[in-house]
Amino acid sequence: MTTPYFTVGLDIGGTAIKAGVVDSHRGQTAGMDRMCEAIRRAVVEAGMRMPDIAAIGVASAGLLDLSAGVIIFAPNLQPWNAVPVRQYIAEVFGLPTAFLNDAKAASLGESWVGAGRGSRSMVLFTLGTGIGGGIVLNDRVLEGEHGHASELGHIRVELTRPRACPCGRLGCLEAYAGAKAVVERTREALADPARVSTLRPLADNGLTARHVFEAAVAGDGTAEKIVEETAFFLAVGAVNLMHTLDPDMVVFGGGMAAAGETFLDRIRRHVRRLAFPVPAERTRIVHAELGDRAGVIGAAAAARRLATGRS
Amino acid sequence: MTTPYFTVGLDIGGTAIKAGVVDSHRGQTAGMDRMCEAIRRAVVEAGMRMPDIAAIGVASAGLLDLSAGVIIFAPNLQPWNAVPVRQYIAEVFGLPTAFLNDAKAASLGESWVGAGRGSRSMVLFTLGTGIGGGIVLNDRVLEGEHGHASELGHIRVELTRPRACPCGRLGCLEAYAGAKAVVERTREALADPARVSTLRPLADNGLTARHVFEAAVAGDGTAEKIVEETAFFLAVGAVNLMHTLDPDMVVFGGGMAAAGETFLDRIRRHVRRLAFPVPAERTRIVHAELGDRAGVIGAAAAARRLATGRS
Repeated sequence: MTTPYFTVGLDIGGTAIKAGVVDSHRGQTAGMDRMCEAIRRAVVEAGMRMPDIAAIGVASAGLLDLSAGVIIFAPNLQPWNAVPVRQYIAEVFGLPTAFLNDAKAASLGESWVGAGRGSRSMVLFTLGTGIGGGIVLNDRVLEGEHGHASELGHIRVELTRPRACPCGRLGCLEAYAGAKAVVERTREALADPARVSTLRPLADNGLTARHVFEAAVAGDGTAEKIVEETAFFLAVGAVNLMHTLDPDMVVFGGGMAAAGETFLDRIRRHVRRLAFPVPAERTRIVHAELGDRAGVIGAAAAARRLATGRS
Repeated sequence: MTTPYFTVGLDIGGTAIKAGVVDSHRGQTAGMDRMCEAIRRAVVEAGMRMPDIAAIGVASAGLLDLSAGVIIFAPNLQPWNAVPVRQYIAEVFGLPTAFLNDAKAASLGESWVGAGRGSRSMVLFTLGTGIGGGIVLNDRVLEGEHGHASELGHIRVELTRPRACPCGRLGCLEAYAGAKAVVERTREALADPARVSTLRPLADNGLTARHVFEAAVAGDGTAEKIVEETAFFLAVGAVNLMHTLDPDMVVFGGGMAAAGETFLDRIRRHVRRLAFPVPAERTRIVHAELGDRAGVIGAAAAARRLATGRS
């Protein structure tokens, strides 16, 4: 028998769970069994057997206790709480099991084989409904002393007239540049009855950030203004990270990054103007490459580190 | 002959150079000779000889090229430029020579034997005329890919009505909470003729941040308001770093930190309110302990790392 070499990653949270990979109403143990089943299925689909697997990595959304390997609370796993995922999976498979936050897993994945491959240090902004993030320094994802590093959506960027953030705080980056904030800012702009916009019929009827970005591409002035301001806000976020960590690259991923190269160019233009000259010129601002797979790949990367003992 | 064990640190910049340790008008080589003389003197005053010294660490103010070991530009070394300090000192003494930014050296010093000893990760805010900083993760000072990490005074904290920062940018933390900004904000408050304050006679006549802090302690309402707002701004800075790096501790040093425990308590109170619950409760907010010696001690710490080959 050869030494097992491969690792498998599991990404808990987001739409996959909503779609039924885990049925939360059947109880926590049943749910963890479904997670184990997803791992077995992934191994089979890759044409392997469990003895080929050296370690497992589990990435999860929600509030985690990293040292205990527990999901304390996750919106998508209600009414569960205190789910001992790492221990359960490790015992079922008898394998070393890594456990990490999903945004951090995505940054590790992008750093390993995605946009950041070959870079020494990378910051990932994940632009979804909110804004998440991950920081990779010297091939290691920064967890922080209490598991709270890289809450990049909750860096405060406004003192005097701060917007309310979904997190309950004021003036967070997410309150300006998250997809939810894009919609809110667009609604506010449309509240001016003098403003002409193709988005007006959607204002109180299912308006999404995607509508805004598409209207901007189609030449709608209001949407254009919102998109340009969003790029500015994200550039402020990027520059704040550049002036803190001075990474090789800043990567934008998540749904809103799908707005494409034009949007990224807007962000780049503001970064060049706002940052100190040397990082402004040298820090690469790029799109994420792994899409939804980043979390699973990053979880597998964390498992690989466990298996090979690389520090 | 025993193996040399000790290291020596040199801190270039600030008042020491102004006082004449280096006479910049005698030319760069003469100036570097004076630096070497300061190193020899420090060794003698410690009761040692140069053969006891294993490595030298040089910390400098100004704009540095870290990889080349060159001071590109330093306000206190005018009209010098492109001073090849590291190579010169390394050749004169025939010893490995480390070269780093003075604020980063201070953070390394505090982390080694000061406020941060025993901690795994630490952020230092240096509150002087401006705001500098240093980040230590796993006993290593974070340099950044282009030597621009930990420009903590130049994290933007205001979007809509940003103050102008001495760096030429808008809305930087330094434009709100540096000592220069404290004086400016006080002058603005005193521009309201209805405002009663003991500081009024100083407004156009040598007002300093120290005056403002002393007047606040003495019960002056205007000064009290400025000091309280300054504590809030610095707490926003601290929380932004906590939500980025989640360090063990945040340390405040530099002249303005001398305002004492009451001021630090104001900062702590805002941090508890502004940060996520876990870091708010667990991250220690403390004063620096090494004062003006932090830079020299940190330079020696960097030298020690060179000498022992610790990665």
